[in-house]
This record gives sequence, structure tokens and C-alpha cells, in this order.
Amino acid sequence: MNINQKYDVVEKYNKGTINLSVNTNPLGMPKSVKMALKKGIEQCALYPDAKCINLSEAIAQHYSGISANQILCVSGVDDAIYRIVYAQSPKKAILLAPTYEDYEKALCNVGCTVKYHFLQKKDRFQITETIFDSLTNEVDVFFLCNPNNPTGKVISRNLLLKILDKCKDNGITLVVDESFIGFLEKPEQYTARELIDEYSNLVILDGFTKLYAIPGLRLGFCISGNQELLRRIFAVGQAWSVSVPAQMAGIAALEDEEYLKETHNLLQEEKRWLLSELSNLNIEVWGSSANYLFFPAPFPHVRKLLEKDGILLRNCEKFVGLDGEFCRVAIKTHQENEKFIKALQKHILK
Amino acid sequence: MNINQKYDVVEKYNKGTINLSVNTNPLGMPKSVKMALKKGIEQCALYPDAKCINLSEAIAQHYSGISANQILCVSGVDDAIYRIVYAQSPKKAILLAPTYEDYEKALCNVGCTVKYHFLQKKDRFQITETIFDSLTNEVDVFFLCNPNNPTGKVISRNLLLKILDKCKDNGITLVVDESFIGFLEKPEQYTARELIDEYSNLVILDGFTKLYAIPGLRLGFCISGNQELLRRIFAVGQAWSVSVPAQMAGIAALEDEEYLKETHNLLQEEKRWLLSELSNLNIEVWGSSANYLFFPAPFPHVRKLLEKDGILLRNCEKFVGLDGEFCRVAIKTHQENEKFIKALQKHILK
Repeated sequence: MNINQKYDVVEKYNKGTINLSVNTNPLGMPKSVKMALKKGIEQCALYPDAKCINLSEAIAQHYSGISANQILCVSGVDDAIYRIVYAQSPKKAILLAPTYEDYEKALCNVGCTVKYHFLQKKDRFQITETIFDSLTNEVDVFFLCNPNNPTGKVISRNLLLKILDKCKDNGITLVVDESFIGFLEKPEQYTARELIDEYSNLVILDGFTKLYAIPGLRLGFCISGNQELLRRIFAVGQAWSVSVPAQMAGIAALEDEEYLKETHNLLQEEKRWLLSELSNLNIEVWGSSANYLFFPAPFPHVRKLLEKDGILLRNCEKFVGLDGEFCRVAIKTHQENEKFIKALQKHILK
Repeated sequence: MNINQKYDVVEKYNKGTINLSVNTNPLGMPKSVKMALKKGIEQCALYPDAKCINLSEAIAQHYSGISANQILCVSGVDDAIYRIVYAQSPKKAILLAPTYEDYEKALCNVGCTVKYHFLQKKDRFQITETIFDSLTNEVDVFFLCNPNNPTGKVISRNLLLKILDKCKDNGITLVVDESFIGFLEKPEQYTARELIDEYSNLVILDGFTKLYAIPGLRLGFCISGNQELLRRIFAVGQAWSVSVPAQMAGIAALEDEEYLKETHNLLQEEKRWLLSELSNLNIEVWGSSANYLFFPAPFPHVRKLLEKDGILLRNCEKFVGLDGEFCRVAIKTHQENEKFIKALQKHILK
């Protein structure tokens, strides 16, 4: 059975277009999750467990070194972002530019002043120690996406520790969004999870949406060693935020070790192939740590031209801090990646 | 096929106990909804429609007189309550006592002062024109649950109109929570839906949790003629709040007219039977408009004694404004209602 037969979702729903703008797992939703959803239908007649006890325990078991009571499940990472903002009511926040856009949307709701730390083109948008200048004692919260979206850059453990110390010294809550960290080859070298006991100013966001390709279910979680902060994050929204299907899917996903292995195998292979093909077209990829590639547009209006070929790229024009045209391209199955490369070749080599 | 075979959820999950504390539809989740959930599993691999366009149109069609753009779907009525509070940031709120408890929980998050309007025992907790005294121009929001939970009392159309006018004159947003209105024999005589065009200070909350017995899916909605307010309610939380399964279930539920007919037939018959049996035990029911009955405890510690018989009642001790012991009992299938009456008889007639 080839990979496209086994995981048929992408083909089935894209109806001819190749959607490289959505950076969920190229394998689609795991079979194990589908089975859990089918089995759990009857239980939708019951209230969900507001505390998500079984799911939190499953997460704690999956990620060694944290305990279930350091996990708060919510209705997707976006829900976590809004809840943290209401729980903290920050007056001043630091955001990277470019980074995921919803941090700012959430912060605007509490009238928070947002100050951007502009990542530099000369650094290929890699975060550097210049970030320290922005982390003053006037700042209340810093949202740090790792790997960063859309740039696909990871932050070194060494720099992360220095940032954490700087934040701690200045009373800043550091929110590390690890939505894409599960796609890394060695996530344990980059995650901040092992630091939660040491830093009470640290909250980690993590989710199932991207890694298990279940955006339709709404499931994410916060990890923190700060019990009082977790209690506040829970209290600022409805108690029953995580649906019964989401809780069941999460538990099933965490048990599916084969799916994660296949994910990493596919990504490794396809990433190597794509980087080589792009290099042949003289395209240098600036960031590729997660399940997507980030690079400067190889020709003007690349997105609109590829759209005519039925290939959708992420519109990066809207990201604060990206002047000029950039591409964020999700790594998909080989068949889809090939179509993308062929379309690029057509435009570049014509 | 009898009703217990057709709708097997309650029996299946209560494992011997009769849970009269949960006032969802006694028929359990509709078969049509289960089928929709099964059919929709594959689509959980896609992001949900943030605007819930199909579902909003289905609701508009189901409730004549409102249009789809006057509906905002959210992740359960509780989600709506928290969102409204963040959208309005009220400084002073009026709540009935007793009423549903989560209005206060949500209001506390924005530091709002809550003033209770105590419903009177002598009125059997029916709201009267004395409410006008509380609706001064210092008040920002008034949450009115209709039918009220836990009292099972409805408010007359005449009084509702007067309250709306008073709120309008004083710049008060009136939030009418109609979570249980679909259980009324003639909901159209009581709903505020037809008033949304006339009153821009009116927001109605409605949900699928209770009427279609799907608390596990998290689905509710706001109805308002005030577009700016709806826009704010949407903006204060995550965009993709309503999951794919919830949207599908909602659409299927609204198409299932037979289920609603059967619900009303069952409730009418069982309510009549329960009221007569309770009357035989000298228990006078104070409120019974929705799918639950509210009455003073027929003997001390009734809840704890019945619990020993495997029958769970709602703990009304925690409701502000209820001094003394009261019972809220959900109307269930005949088999369950009979067990409840027999247990009561045992304690009263012994």
C-alpha cells in the first residue's frame, strides 16, 4: 500500500488543487484517530470532562518529565493564546516580526501595546541576542514561536535559556509556542518542556492540530510549572472547552507511535528531495526546521501564478516584518511535492 | 420499537443510576446526529468554517424571522457568555437570584460588580415588575435566563417587552439565555427572537446542548440585530471555535423534525404524569415550563437520601438566592421517572 492510498485525506478533499498553504501533517489524520472518533460518537451525549484528566495523563506519559497537573488542555492553541492574554491582561507585549499573527489579534482585545522585534533579513530572520534589548522591565509578556511560523527557524537551547533568564529578571511571562516542534527530527533538543519546573514565568503552547492533522477538532494544551497561572487560564473561559471527540482523538493520537515514525520518515525524505530540487532552481531555502519551507520568492507574483496551476502557497504578504515576497510551502506527499516542483520549473526555466 | 430501545444512550451510560441532575433531552442524542458525526469523521482533517456559514443558514431557516448574518455560532452557550462579557467589559451587572451560575463566573473575570435581584419565595421565584428598580442607568448588562434555571419559570411576553424598553432607556445590554426555550410547548410565544431588529441592546443565547442532548460537542449561538456587537463577540476569542463535528451535528439536528415532535410528545405526557404523582405525594411543583421540575424539598436531605437509591438530583444549595432545600428534577423517559417516584414514595410514605 503506498502512502497516498493509506492516507487519502489530502487527495480526497483538495479536489485537484495542491494546498501547500496548510501546514498540517502531510499524512492526514491518523487511522487510529478516525477509529477513536467512530467509537466515541455515543459519548457526545455526555458532558466532556472539564479537567481532561485522561488526556492530560496521556500527554504527561508521552512527554517524559512533566506531570499531568502541569498540563491544561484547551480548544486549540488559538484558544490558549486568547486565554493567556485574558489571564494576564498584559499592558506591553513583545512579538517577533515576522511570526504567527494571532498573538497580536488576541493582545489587541485587552488594549495591550504591542512592540515588534524585527528579525533581520541579513540574519535570514534567525533570532539573535539583539532580542535582549527588547526585553525590558516594562514588558509583561513575550510570545516566542519555536520553530517560528512562517520562517521555519528554530532557536538554540543556549539562546532560549538566556531569553528565559532575561524574562525572569524582568518579570516577563515567556510564552513559547511549540505547535510545530513535534515535526523536528530531534524535538527534545529544542523544547522548553524540561524547564517548566525551574521557570515559573514560562508557559508552553502545544497542539494536535498540526502534528496529527486534526484542525477540525480543536485541541491544544498549555504546559507550565506555575499552578496559579494555569488556574487563571482555566478560569477565564468556559470550563467545558475541550469536546468529547477532541479528548478521544488526542488520547488515540498519542498512542499511535507508528504514525509519528512515518511522519518523520516522510518529512526527512521529502525535505531532502525538495531542498535539492529547489537548489537546482537556484532557490535557497532560508528555514526548513519544521514541516514547511521558507524562502524568498524565485520570481514576482509567484503565488498568483502557481494558483493558476492549482497550487496554493501561503500568502506571506500579511506578516508584519516581511517586506518583499516570500514563500511558505508545506511539505506534502511526494506526488504533491513533485507537482509543485514541476510548476516552479515551468515558470523558471521557460 | 419502544422509546428506550430507540434512544439507548441514557440507559447505556448511567450504569444503573438515574441521573435527574442533567437536564438534557431525555431522548438522548438524535440518530440523525450520530449518522452525521460518522459521515463527517474524514472532514476533521480540515479546518472548520470559522464563520459557520452553512450552520447559520440552517438556524435562520429553522427559526423564521431572523437572517443568517444575525447569528454567531460559538462553542456552547457558556462560550457565548464569556465572549459577551469580554466584548462588553461591563462595570455593573444585574443577575437574578436564583439563576444559572456561570454568568457570575464570567463577569468576575473582568472585575464587574454583580448586583443580585432576589426573586421572592412568596412569588415562587417568578420575576415581577420589581425588577425595574434594579435596571438603573448605572447598569451595563442584565443576564435573563428564560425559562429560568433552576426555577423552570418563564417570563411573560408583556413583562419581557417592558424590561427591554427599560434596558434600552438606560443603555443596558439585555442578554436573554434561551437554552431551554425549545422544550416549551409553544416557544414562539416566549422567545425574544422577533425583537432583535427593534432592540439593538438585545442578545439572545441559544444552544444545542440541552435540546439535542449533545453536551459533548460544544455548540451554541448568539442572535442579535446588532452587527457591531456580534463582530466584537467573534473577535474576543479564537476564530475557529466551532469544531467540524459540532457544525455537522447542528445542521443534522435542525433537519430532524421528527425528533423534536417526539421530544414534545414525551415531555408533555411525562410532565403530566409526574405532576400528578407528585401532587399525590402533596408536593407542589413551583416551576415546570421547561424539561425539568422545580419544587421545595418534600423532606430534609432529600438529595442525599435519593442518592443512596441511585437517583441523582441537582444540588440546588449552591444557587445564590435559594435558602432552604429545593429540588431540580429533569424529566426523563417513563421508566426513569417511575423509579424516581417510587423512591420518593418509599421515603415519604414509610
